[in-house]
Amino acid sequence: MTQTAEPATTTADDTANRWFADFEAALRARDVAAAAGMFATESYWRDLVSFTWNLKTVEGREGVTELLEHTLESTDPSGFVLDEPADEADGVVTAWFRFETAVGRGRGLLRLIDQDGPKAFTFLTTLYELKGHEEPRNEHRPMGAEHGANKQRKTWKEHRQQEAESLGSTMQPYVLVVGGGQGGIALGSRLRQLGVPSLVIDKHPRPGDQWRNRYKSLCLHDPVWYDHLPYLKFPENWPVFSPKDKIGDWLESYVRIMEVPYWSSTTATSATWNPENEEWVVQVEREGQPLTLRPKQLVLATGMSGKPNLPDFPGMDVFKGDQHHSSAHPGPDAYAGKKCVVVGSNNSAFDICGALWEHDADVTMVQRSSTHIVRSDSLMDLGLGDLYSERALAAGVTTEKADLIFASLPYRILHTFQIPAYEAMAERDKDFYQRLEASGFDHDWGDDGSGLFMKYLRRGSGYYIDVGAADLVANGDVKLAHGQVDHLTEDAVVLEDGTELPADLVVYATGYGSMNGWAADLIDQETADRLGKVWGLGSETTKDPGPWEGEQRNMWKPTQVPHLWMHGGNLHQSRHYSLYLALQLKARLEGIDTPVYALQEVHHTG
Amino acid sequence: MTQTAEPATTTADDTANRWFADFEAALRARDVAAAAGMFATESYWRDLVSFTWNLKTVEGREGVTELLEHTLESTDPSGFVLDEPADEADGVVTAWFRFETAVGRGRGLLRLIDQDGPKAFTFLTTLYELKGHEEPRNEHRPMGAEHGANKQRKTWKEHRQQEAESLGSTMQPYVLVVGGGQGGIALGSRLRQLGVPSLVIDKHPRPGDQWRNRYKSLCLHDPVWYDHLPYLKFPENWPVFSPKDKIGDWLESYVRIMEVPYWSSTTATSATWNPENEEWVVQVEREGQPLTLRPKQLVLATGMSGKPNLPDFPGMDVFKGDQHHSSAHPGPDAYAGKKCVVVGSNNSAFDICGALWEHDADVTMVQRSSTHIVRSDSLMDLGLGDLYSERALAAGVTTEKADLIFASLPYRILHTFQIPAYEAMAERDKDFYQRLEASGFDHDWGDDGSGLFMKYLRRGSGYYIDVGAADLVANGDVKLAHGQVDHLTEDAVVLEDGTELPADLVVYATGYGSMNGWAADLIDQETADRLGKVWGLGSETTKDPGPWEGEQRNMWKPTQVPHLWMHGGNLHQSRHYSLYLALQLKARLEGIDTPVYALQEVHHTG
Repeated sequence: MTQTAEPATTTADDTANRWFADFEAALRARDVAAAAGMFATESYWRDLVSFTWNLKTVEGREGVTELLEHTLESTDPSGFVLDEPADEADGVVTAWFRFETAVGRGRGLLRLIDQDGPKAFTFLTTLYELKGHEEPRNEHRPMGAEHGANKQRKTWKEHRQQEAESLGSTMQPYVLVVGGGQGGIALGSRLRQLGVPSLVIDKHPRPGDQWRNRYKSLCLHDPVWYDHLPYLKFPENWPVFSPKDKIGDWLESYVRIMEVPYWSSTTATSATWNPENEEWVVQVEREGQPLTLRPKQLVLATGMSGKPNLPDFPGMDVFKGDQHHSSAHPGPDAYAGKKCVVVGSNNSAFDICGALWEHDADVTMVQRSSTHIVRSDSLMDLGLGDLYSERALAAGVTTEKADLIFASLPYRILHTFQIPAYEAMAERDKDFYQRLEASGFDHDWGDDGSGLFMKYLRRGSGYYIDVGAADLVANGDVKLAHGQVDHLTEDAVVLEDGTELPADLVVYATGYGSMNGWAADLIDQETADRLGKVWGLGSETTKDPGPWEGEQRNMWKPTQVPHLWMHGGNLHQSRHYSLYLALQLKARLEGIDTPVYALQEVHHTG
Repeated sequence: MTQTAEPATTTADDTANRWFADFEAALRARDVAAAAGMFATESYWRDLVSFTWNLKTVEGREGVTELLEHTLESTDPSGFVLDEPADEADGVVTAWFRFETAVGRGRGLLRLIDQDGPKAFTFLTTLYELKGHEEPRNEHRPMGAEHGANKQRKTWKEHRQQEAESLGSTMQPYVLVVGGGQGGIALGSRLRQLGVPSLVIDKHPRPGDQWRNRYKSLCLHDPVWYDHLPYLKFPENWPVFSPKDKIGDWLESYVRIMEVPYWSSTTATSATWNPENEEWVVQVEREGQPLTLRPKQLVLATGMSGKPNLPDFPGMDVFKGDQHHSSAHPGPDAYAGKKCVVVGSNNSAFDICGALWEHDADVTMVQRSSTHIVRSDSLMDLGLGDLYSERALAAGVTTEKADLIFASLPYRILHTFQIPAYEAMAERDKDFYQRLEASGFDHDWGDDGSGLFMKYLRRGSGYYIDVGAADLVANGDVKLAHGQVDHLTEDAVVLEDGTELPADLVVYATGYGSMNGWAADLIDQETADRLGKVWGLGSETTKDPGPWEGEQRNMWKPTQVPHLWMHGGNLHQSRHYSLYLALQLKARLEGIDTPVYALQEVHHTG
């Protein structure tokens, strides 16, 4: 390629602007090869809805070529423009930008490296609104008062009452969201702002109960800056780690403030797709009364930590003490002085062991496989601090920007960014890890040293964010046993090697199953199999078999079961990805064409 | 004074920095004359707590001299520094600044004009925090989770329960706030953040009922940007004008989210100062149970629109129809086809007439004195738009800045800033005012043409923010009668001129009394007289007799009754001035010396 003599003072803006101009010109000319040629040999384009009507990461010029060949014409992109001054550091030009498509408006983040001139290394394009369907906020917020004199006036309260009465009876929701935890609530608020008639249903008596009902000492393990819901952020005096009841109360207030259409005490018992009417027929029980709902779209937001994995050990039927899955653990109050055996060594196990010990129980943790532990403050500082913290905010990294920065790091290489952070944590907490390992605890850093977040993304398990209980294991206050459980007796847990652990209480901190288990329960096994395993990246690491997916399996995007969607994740993901799912649903409601590029194949059923 | 040759490029920053340097030097040297000499001949220094432990506006060099002579030594101010680049426009340099005192940190706004060199025209100094008692927010927010292992752990929920159980029994609040509307709630949240043990009590069953119980069609007349509460702003999709039930729900959620210590269904029946124990003895009824509270400080936040002014006309006892004060009006539902006479022509009267008309009642408004009307959208645009609007936010005028800008305009000259805005409104809505006056409506623009906000500040009455009902009067749909009421008969209202208005319903939209009426009810008349009239500026305009006060009588500052304070105002004032009142109370709790400069004398008792 010809080397032009660049003026000595080419700024980052110049570089980015030139790239956008050339890229847009290629797109306008429908010159896919030219557009693809603007990407580096190793490169990643992640599109959230705007081009692909999917959540899709493609790699290299081949990936870009295929994506554009399939989507360029219908997307008709234009107006690529810098959103603020570009940044240059360590040879990488980073540029926030906006653009338009035929039906929407997008924003994204570009990283350019020098490879015979500036080439895209990572390119994130996201849809943030649909033309003609902009959310009513800021200068477009609703008036609230209907000024003037109007004999047909209905007050806000009357509107709300009328809505509540007709929803599910004379008016069917377009979208039914099953599960009213943070995921369902965040999605419900987005859908309402987009004017999509929706309904969120939840089995508990009050929004927030999913948290209230957890063990007594539970607080969120992710810090507040990471946890905001859409539209209404926690105030600046909200605690760093929300106590469970406080987050429960927040969710309850949020549902009311954001007018999320929400039915408590409502269980979905079955759902069947009716192809003639093109709707789901969903049987629910609302406060004990049976009811049929007929949404066009069904979203399961039933929670990753939703469907308990209860083991089936011989002797569970003869054991005389208390036994339950960690999700059903009531807390330590009844167990002072009792022998407690907790099977499992990840988050729930540690929280429960810690609380039991504080309540003077005799506690043994049974570790069956290795666990990755990181200290909460180290994770907060070194893991999240650049994006989600007071210092991030002070540096201009808003929650919205942080979410997009995070989203712009390709899953394929995300671990490489994580490894140094975890090495730093290992160094910072060297003493702690020495003591932990000296106690016999089997500790890991993830298959490739990439630590907690990758474990979370790949398998949603296998870690503990330490808020103090790990020291109890390290110093022996909580006893440690190793190995698989063989069977239970009337009063003990017996391991494979014969070790007998006398027990008044056994807690199975044995995790949760893939979310398509909910689909099996609600719809049928065939549909669950067609949907396939939910969550994971296909990284060929423990519990995340290949092939490579490139995105979270089945989350927030079209699935192999038309009209069936999965939503959820942690508070950050619920917040961020609810936007893209809501936009996809809104587009379908409005009859906007949504040609899905590269609908993901299913490789695993659970 | 010697003219120095100024460099051609003296910036606004230079000017401001030079002034602050000189001012601080004079203060440090305790050279009051020099400091006063830095003010223009017509000038205003408004101090909110930082120097005066009062809310105090002084005028001219004499005023500055007196203020400094009394406060300079104990305040020990320093560290005056620009907070951001200064602005220069129309010969005025405007500078945001920070400073310190012996016990606190302050921020303010300075306006410099050229009068033989730069002189202060307006100077606002405000206290925003006390050293050593900073609010726990942002990087100092509470952790929430107590990390580590602790056998004595109390969860958040247990702390809250313990607090609720002990408050008012084993633990007396330092501050008791009587009245749990927006004023009590805003103050309660500030006090909690400052760690002042407090309690807010309210007679209604739920926070927000003060709004829910109002007439059906009521929405806030002030736009959302003006109405935020402290700490937790309305989300960006909140309606411009909150419907009453929605604001009621917000207040209820806010109390919970901000952990405001709040007792509903609680009425204060008497309060007596006990000089031996230096505490108030307050008898309350909580859900019917009598209880004694012993706060050191008593705040009445019972509302400007709290104590109804019910007239006493002859014949009220013989009238056979419904009659009630506007505050007790249930709404129009029972009055379709009925003859309704509404006595009064201000906000409540218009709202009620409008709602009755929409419900097919036969409505007559009795206008007894002139009313100032401004259309809601014009007020929003031309009256508030520069400070409280989307465009203000886009221009970098945050709510906090807007409040300080507003506070920096001296009450003495505020009307001069207002007059042009109202002239603009008169022009914009010329057609409307012509029609209104053609109907015989007696319209005014305030005594000096300064419009609504001055009427509000001076007398808290005499206006209507038109949201549509004025057109009904203008076009005759709502009939108009003029004059004082002479008496009632069994079925009519009879005016002084003999006009007989048949009536099934009479609504006395006759306003509210001075808030010291609450003090008379709760404490005794002597105390109420010692406290004096509440509200008003002493402007010698209608219902605001002189002498000039310079600040709102008795609001948010020390009164002639030690340990008795008045809080309230509209949502903007509740938000902003709750900070200063909370800081004054915190200082007293902590034993910080609070020498009050120029405690206001009482000139009127009601």
